Amino acid sequence: MSVPAGQATSFPPDPLFLGFDVGGTNIKMGLVDNQGRTLVKTMIPTHQERGPADACRRMTEVGRQLTADAGVDFAQVATIGLATPGTMDIAAGLLLQPHNLPAWWEFPIRDCLIETIGKPVAFANDANAAAFGEFWVGSGARYHSIVLFTLGTGVGGGIIIGDLSVDGEHSHGSECGHIHIEFGPHARICGCGQRGHLEAYTSAKAVVQRTKEALFSGRSSSLRDRLGAGGELTSLMVAEEASRDDRLCLEIVMETARFLAIGAVNLMHVIDPGAVIFGGAMNFGGPDSDLGRRFLERIRSEVRLRAFPTLAASTAIEFAQLGGDAGYIGAAGIARLQHQRSRR
Amino acid sequence: MSVPAGQATSFPPDPLFLGFDVGGTNIKMGLVDNQGRTLVKTMIPTHQERGPADACRRMTEVGRQLTADAGVDFAQVATIGLATPGTMDIAAGLLLQPHNLPAWWEFPIRDCLIETIGKPVAFANDANAAAFGEFWVGSGARYHSIVLFTLGTGVGGGIIIGDLSVDGEHSHGSECGHIHIEFGPHARICGCGQRGHLEAYTSAKAVVQRTKEALFSGRSSSLRDRLGAGGELTSLMVAEEASRDDRLCLEIVMETARFLAIGAVNLMHVIDPGAVIFGGAMNFGGPDSDLGRRFLERIRSEVRLRAFPTLAASTAIEFAQLGGDAGYIGAAGIARLQHQRSRR
Repeated sequence: MSVPAGQATSFPPDPLFLGFDVGGTNIKMGLVDNQGRTLVKTMIPTHQERGPADACRRMTEVGRQLTADAGVDFAQVATIGLATPGTMDIAAGLLLQPHNLPAWWEFPIRDCLIETIGKPVAFANDANAAAFGEFWVGSGARYHSIVLFTLGTGVGGGIIIGDLSVDGEHSHGSECGHIHIEFGPHARICGCGQRGHLEAYTSAKAVVQRTKEALFSGRSSSLRDRLGAGGELTSLMVAEEASRDDRLCLEIVMETARFLAIGAVNLMHVIDPGAVIFGGAMNFGGPDSDLGRRFLERIRSEVRLRAFPTLAASTAIEFAQLGGDAGYIGAAGIARLQHQRSRR
Repeated sequence: MSVPAGQATSFPPDPLFLGFDVGGTNIKMGLVDNQGRTLVKTMIPTHQERGPADACRRMTEVGRQLTADAGVDFAQVATIGLATPGTMDIAAGLLLQPHNLPAWWEFPIRDCLIETIGKPVAFANDANAAAFGEFWVGSGARYHSIVLFTLGTGVGGGIIIGDLSVDGEHSHGSECGHIHIEFGPHARICGCGQRGHLEAYTSAKAVVQRTKEALFSGRSSSLRDRLGAGGELTSLMVAEEASRDDRLCLEIVMETARFLAIGAVNLMHVIDPGAVIFGGAMNFGGPDSDLGRRFLERIRSEVRLRAFPTLAASTAIEFAQLGGDAGYIGAAGIARLQHQRSRR
């Protein structure tokens, strides 16, 4: 094994990890060191229609090139981390029927990547990988355990307890958006078809739906001017009008915070993590905006109303820090764990 | 170290574990071997009013006597398991404010027992200990992870994933009765004061409350004859009349099953365990009665309606097997884990 110049000592160099985060549109990847720092990163199109074997070949090629660009011998990459959307069988390394990768169904992706890249591959669900990233070097780095909610078109989740990613016995662990917070015929219908799930109240789609209902009921809002020309309502428009103090839109944002607080409290009473972290794009501007900070503050105050007092006082409620990098960083982190365990 | 006759070999004898399960009325205890078999067991009154130090002295005395009765040298007992009701600080070994042990508040019970009994003590929440017992040698023994709901005056829970008991960062993990399944002003009030928790729908108290409301609304029921003389309605009476096919009582039982299924599905989507197990006395007769079996069958069918299809098809839904022994057996099991870790 050759080592890069400057690292040739009698000790082997620190291992590095290459993390891949496969999405329906793009595959993000990064070379991550033993401390969770990204040395280099890039992104390639998924081209899902070309199928998973083609993607594995391109991931290998670009991953090798990326490593070379960083001036690192590929031999120093100890283990690969691969995060994909579900459904999947993590233990078997299989993709089952991921809805945004229809050409990849029922495919042994882990073994395919092992074959093309020639290294051990740790396989993870993308939401759990993102949670592991935040846990390792993001908002969760100070805690022994975290729950991550990812807010977007749907609501995903990841749970990390110590070094354990709660993957579940059937690779369905940590589906934090799909818990009932309401039941009965009045409960809202979720993207999964069931009624009353947290996602049915707090996804971007749910925000749009709730806003439409309020407009339909006759509420006044500056949204009416924007929609007059016949545009499509989006959660981003709700956020924009809320940040301009439109009363209805502000109500929708704060009600979303209340629903998320109910979900957060459920997870706090089940897992009792050190921190509950909110990631994903549907964060009403996130930590860098006034509206985002008010949104988070409302989640916190609604949690304080509902959680056991000890937990209300001591559980951190934060935005995620790593943004779109969380997935490949977490995949690399899970690869690092697998590498460490293999050396025991 | 002397060993009992017949075990004197050049190998040390298998370690044994003494498990204590402290309740408001009684302390159950048992001597448990390395395979989870109870060699001897007994029960002493808690005498909570005498305080925790007195209890530790009596636990030590009776525990030593119990071990001697089994013909075992006390030196063979490797580690002690101690399960208590919360609130508690597990890491610090402290009782905080357990509501059924008012004379024991803010007490370092683990160290007190270490002092009197002279052995390492593993400290656990009683519901998590019961879950560990079922996981080790009960209904959960075939699975890698379980969720236990304990049905009684309240609804408790325990979550075990691999060797991990989900105790939480603030000793509030696995409070599976205190998850919202409903919100808003119409949601039922829980024993903890919050609205909409699973316990508010499925505890023995909730069953009584829901039955009273139905009677008050004018529903006919054979309960009216029994209550005519001025008795107090209990969940046991509801179970008895349901098993005699009283229509209202049967509805209450089956509605309870539906609520529990909603709670079970929430935990299945968060933890994705191998099995969800229902323990505790409020089980409508449990596995040995026709009503109990119908109750469990209804939980299963309601879970199948609501869970992700993969989980609905593959997650076991069972009654607990160990009854009142689960707590001390699980405490012994957690003691065994601590012992094994201490020898690595």
